[in-house]
Amino acid sequence: MATQLERAVRNEITPEMQAVAQDEQFAPEQIREWVAEGTVVIPKNIHRQSCDAVGIGETLSTKINANIGTSQKHPEIENEIEKLRVALDSGSDAVMDLSTGGDLTSIRNTILNMSPKPVGTVPIYEMMVRSKTFDINLYLDIIRQQAEQGVDFFTIHAGIRKNHIPLIEKRLMGVVSRGGAYLVQYMRRSGNDNPLYERYDDILAICREHDVTISLGDGLRPGCINDATDEAQIEELKVLGQLAQRSRDAGVQVMIEGPGHVPLHQIQQNMELKKQYAGTTPFYVLGPLVTDLAVGYDHISGAIGGTLAAYYGASFLCYLTPREHLGLPDLEDVREGVIASRIAAHAADLARGKPGTLERNNALSRARLAFDWERQFELALDPEKARERRESATDKEGDVCSMCGEFCSMKVSHES
Amino acid sequence: MATQLERAVRNEITPEMQAVAQDEQFAPEQIREWVAEGTVVIPKNIHRQSCDAVGIGETLSTKINANIGTSQKHPEIENEIEKLRVALDSGSDAVMDLSTGGDLTSIRNTILNMSPKPVGTVPIYEMMVRSKTFDINLYLDIIRQQAEQGVDFFTIHAGIRKNHIPLIEKRLMGVVSRGGAYLVQYMRRSGNDNPLYERYDDILAICREHDVTISLGDGLRPGCINDATDEAQIEELKVLGQLAQRSRDAGVQVMIEGPGHVPLHQIQQNMELKKQYAGTTPFYVLGPLVTDLAVGYDHISGAIGGTLAAYYGASFLCYLTPREHLGLPDLEDVREGVIASRIAAHAADLARGKPGTLERNNALSRARLAFDWERQFELALDPEKARERRESATDKEGDVCSMCGEFCSMKVSHES
Repeated sequence: MATQLERAVRNEITPEMQAVAQDEQFAPEQIREWVAEGTVVIPKNIHRQSCDAVGIGETLSTKINANIGTSQKHPEIENEIEKLRVALDSGSDAVMDLSTGGDLTSIRNTILNMSPKPVGTVPIYEMMVRSKTFDINLYLDIIRQQAEQGVDFFTIHAGIRKNHIPLIEKRLMGVVSRGGAYLVQYMRRSGNDNPLYERYDDILAICREHDVTISLGDGLRPGCINDATDEAQIEELKVLGQLAQRSRDAGVQVMIEGPGHVPLHQIQQNMELKKQYAGTTPFYVLGPLVTDLAVGYDHISGAIGGTLAAYYGASFLCYLTPREHLGLPDLEDVREGVIASRIAAHAADLARGKPGTLERNNALSRARLAFDWERQFELALDPEKARERRESATDKEGDVCSMCGEFCSMKVSHES
Repeated sequence: MATQLERAVRNEITPEMQAVAQDEQFAPEQIREWVAEGTVVIPKNIHRQSCDAVGIGETLSTKINANIGTSQKHPEIENEIEKLRVALDSGSDAVMDLSTGGDLTSIRNTILNMSPKPVGTVPIYEMMVRSKTFDINLYLDIIRQQAEQGVDFFTIHAGIRKNHIPLIEKRLMGVVSRGGAYLVQYMRRSGNDNPLYERYDDILAICREHDVTISLGDGLRPGCINDATDEAQIEELKVLGQLAQRSRDAGVQVMIEGPGHVPLHQIQQNMELKKQYAGTTPFYVLGPLVTDLAVGYDHISGAIGGTLAAYYGASFLCYLTPREHLGLPDLEDVREGVIASRIAAHAADLARGKPGTLERNNALSRARLAFDWERQFELALDPEKARERRESATDKEGDVCSMCGEFCSMKVSHES
């Protein structure tokens, strides 16, 4: 089997490209062209027949991802299945299984079987669970096994190099990526360079075989506002750009991961740096958080940064929940995180004039003007919450709401 | 007594200017200069001795306002007192009493007595409650009485003119400001122009006497994304700019109100239009909301727009709660609304490099790196919620949190 990228390069329009074309209101040939040049990826493992084709790229609507997964102290899968359900019901376009507790293979199987959306993993987490220190042969076994299982995309921290380590010393927060910290520890102790970089061709061969999309992890992403856009981050980004090109040359679909913590005025610059070093490779960002002070509200801080990032060219937003930096999210946190990211994605798409966005806003506004509450709920990003917040308001006053009551401007306008 | 503006023009540095200078880390003479030219206002009625001096202007830190107030169906003051307490505890810099139910004078008195922060009103709401149709003499009585009572700032919709009415016809949502809708109805039915415009000198005389800051309301603010930045909005803005100059010429402190609903790509343009027509007059914006689809989450949509607006020059953000467009907010809505606005204000201030902002972010990040949870809570924008979200997380694993557990990147970094 060939990858979506290889097939696109051969001028083949796959059923997945056709599905993306229909969802996004573009011609199939246009989608094929974008997949062929690497501007769009469609993460879908060849073993996953039941997975939706989700297109990720700057030219398409912005997508969002929800992270779920067990921890060592909470290895139970039941909770994570519930989180998966909430994430999908709230409209997540993809999920990542970040489990580190329990039977990882069985948990991953369950999530793959239950998710009609692309499922990603960070294989180095399984490595961390299985071995105190990094072992490239075990790592390759892990990704081979996960690829055979059907995982659609892998975060791979291949861009962090031994020569980046001195740059970390200037930082306030050091390395905050778990995969990055584990690899830095390995490089420091062994004196070796990053084996994921050195053995990248072996990784590519496995990903190509199963059409696993690589998401090049930013092990050196800044962990606080102070460290944003620093030399460590940019040096790693340059390597990620080179690896992205190597991936495409090998027929492997690829995205690049980005920050993290970025003050508002540096977000546009970050998107431009990505373009400079990695062209139109889809950019997958975590937030970014525009302040460190919104503890307990990182979903809001992340939505602010995410909107701007997507407006300036990020294609894929990883959610942050209100529990970020504090603990493992619960079901309500997952929901809040997904919706906040969807608001960001949609606001950016609307500002970029993407197909259907203004029309949907206008349809909702017309329903609002007509006091058609059911239609408003239907068009809202979270119909259930909108309804609940209307119905639990202290009272409902016929057409109008309890905020303005008889002084409702729309009611007055209807009269005049 | 003279107003802060008049005293500044006479080269007097008032105790209020001194207090603002200290809070904002500027020289008192600098604050005096900004007040004299109208770049900064300090809304404080001469009868309000116990009110903090809060400076509002683009050169200072961004301030936020919380709206509270009774409705006709919920005239009880107890609830509003609770909301006032929550708004102040959550860090609101000002409150507006928008009451339309119960004994308005007594409610206003209670709020004025309880609030150490500036209190604003929209006097046309009392007019609406007292008379089905607009009566300028009653209106002047109302503002005189409210000014004597101690109200610190008034929203006055003096910019909407009879010749703007045809421009409304092109809109999807028409007029969504309650004061605006009431005035348009009056102008349509009577054939007269806006009496607040025609009698603006009388309004100015009253405000000057008590040093009530005028906040020029945008009766034609757009009520949906589709109507953003349209001719109606801009024609009114031009009038607001002229009225702002007339206010300053009369010794009256003045702000200008702005939208509303604005897609992300038009926010910078909106801030520049304000500058074009009203110079450095402080800009007080409602959100703005970057999409109509975030029903039940307008605090997030408003925080996204508010961050960008403040970054590009808005000085004062009016909060939106999760209940906006759905019903009267409850206590939790007030809190969520205030915090979301504070995140926006702070993120913009940080991006603009305002004094102390980066330092506070760095202090929190250092506490995070040291696993000093108490210090993190202390520095967070909402210490109580941060603590609650940590403590209610499924478990606490010593230093680290339940998100990453033993795989915490900071723990790994400490070890390596």
